[in-house]
Amino acid sequence: MRQLMIDMVYRIQDEICEALCLIDETNYREDIWEREEGGGGRSRVFSEGSVFEKAGVNVSVVYGTLEPEAAKAMGGGHLLADEDLDFFATGVSLVLHPKNPMAPTVHANYRYFERGNGEKEGSWWFGGGADLTPSYLFEEDAIHFHSTLKHVCDRHDVANYTKFKDWCDDYFHIPHRQEARGLGGIFFDDLRSHEKEACFAFVTDCAESFLESYIPILERRKDIEYDEHHKDWQQVRRGRYVEFNLVYDRGTTFGLKTNGRIESILMSLPLTARWEYCHEVKPNSEEERMQTLLKNPINWIE
Amino acid sequence: MRQLMIDMVYRIQDEICEALCLIDETNYREDIWEREEGGGGRSRVFSEGSVFEKAGVNVSVVYGTLEPEAAKAMGGGHLLADEDLDFFATGVSLVLHPKNPMAPTVHANYRYFERGNGEKEGSWWFGGGADLTPSYLFEEDAIHFHSTLKHVCDRHDVANYTKFKDWCDDYFHIPHRQEARGLGGIFFDDLRSHEKEACFAFVTDCAESFLESYIPILERRKDIEYDEHHKDWQQVRRGRYVEFNLVYDRGTTFGLKTNGRIESILMSLPLTARWEYCHEVKPNSEEERMQTLLKNPINWIE
Repeated sequence: MRQLMIDMVYRIQDEICEALCLIDETNYREDIWEREEGGGGRSRVFSEGSVFEKAGVNVSVVYGTLEPEAAKAMGGGHLLADEDLDFFATGVSLVLHPKNPMAPTVHANYRYFERGNGEKEGSWWFGGGADLTPSYLFEEDAIHFHSTLKHVCDRHDVANYTKFKDWCDDYFHIPHRQEARGLGGIFFDDLRSHEKEACFAFVTDCAESFLESYIPILERRKDIEYDEHHKDWQQVRRGRYVEFNLVYDRGTTFGLKTNGRIESILMSLPLTARWEYCHEVKPNSEEERMQTLLKNPINWIE
Repeated sequence: MRQLMIDMVYRIQDEICEALCLIDETNYREDIWEREEGGGGRSRVFSEGSVFEKAGVNVSVVYGTLEPEAAKAMGGGHLLADEDLDFFATGVSLVLHPKNPMAPTVHANYRYFERGNGEKEGSWWFGGGADLTPSYLFEEDAIHFHSTLKHVCDRHDVANYTKFKDWCDDYFHIPHRQEARGLGGIFFDDLRSHEKEACFAFVTDCAESFLESYIPILERRKDIEYDEHHKDWQQVRRGRYVEFNLVYDRGTTFGLKTNGRIESILMSLPLTARWEYCHEVKPNSEEERMQTLLKNPINWIE
């Protein structure tokens, strides 16, 4: 399974980057890196194209021995005995921040973990998900994104869209703001309810469906006209994105604690962000509409 | 002591804000707020003047019962038995981010804590410090700032500049970047080695010396000419400031966990920040000189 997953994430990275190169009319910067304690990865970042302010697609394959504190942050395997501190983890992770404030940020991440040799009950699992973070609301975008994910879930017995959608809303919640990071999507962790092969098939299908879930949205929004006011609001929303990632995100926490490659971990942060003291949205504005929805997540599919 | 400290922090806030109004040629926005679980505060923020991009001076007086998790984040009193979850905390806290990249950001914070009724051994303590975070290095500024703090320490038996300077370097360290947040200053916590009155006298002297430690530096730097390149580097450094505050700062963590007023807690964040993938400084540049120093803190006073 380790090799199957490794092959899949590298293939997906290639496919997604190829599509992004076309849209962004530029090439990515690639960094192949090694981790001192074991493993490494391949990071690809777009930052000079026509569409993305900053966009990263990252593969990592890491292994070694966990510090107990990192083991706690890892999830899933924290149920295991302390002696199983050996780990293996591989995944593909992407965050795309378009320039245009009408085009949403998107994040997706699919990963496979093992603790020990991955044979004991509870010693292997899959995780992942995808979620959409617009600054401005276009309902059809949210519906398209969620529908694509639901169709993937519906094709697999191991998956449950409703459960994974709720899990996503719970996970990408910013408690101190009492709001969601974005409009959600799906999130799952500790997935090991079926055979490894069935879980892998679902995760592969998710990863292969990424472009279909996002590119049509990007195409519709990337060239809409906008002004400074829209850009300011995007910057405020990006501040919230930074808050979530640095304070709550388990992947970031895990990376910082396992001596991951900092530039790859923090690739998810936007190029720029803004913190205005007591920022307030105008009543009945588009910004207020977005904010209201972030405070009260809804179902996008009947 | 509770009332003495409360009176002091409000007086210091008034004095500092009065001086900042003159320099910034504007007035602050004031918010008086209450905390549902007990207490409240007075926040003052400058954001429309000639000198500061964003500057906040905040007083808070809060009390109530701690969640066990917050008790751990509080420091000092974590040595106490779990039943002492009642707490009282008051302090003045400020962060000033000037517009000009040649003018350093400064932070200072002086506070008093009690657990239970504050009478048991270890159930009361003072904490605080001040530190300077420039984007560009002016040695005379660092020396002036540290000298002022050393003089204050030298006037009090409870204080030890060398110890507090090292503590500051330890505290404002960003492990994942392997660099300091800035050029340090002093930091102390759990201060209760002498009578309450002696500790209070030292903390008061620190707070009263803030303007002397910083304003001459600001006056020298606030009108220096700069270009976009300087501003970009300032934005990158501000990104690191955000990383430290959201990932490691104990005050921020404590605030987020005790349902503090979010806008007052996150007042410390700069107006804007920037995360470039794999940002690198040019060899032999002023930026490299700064970065080298952040990776290898030095002593500014013989």
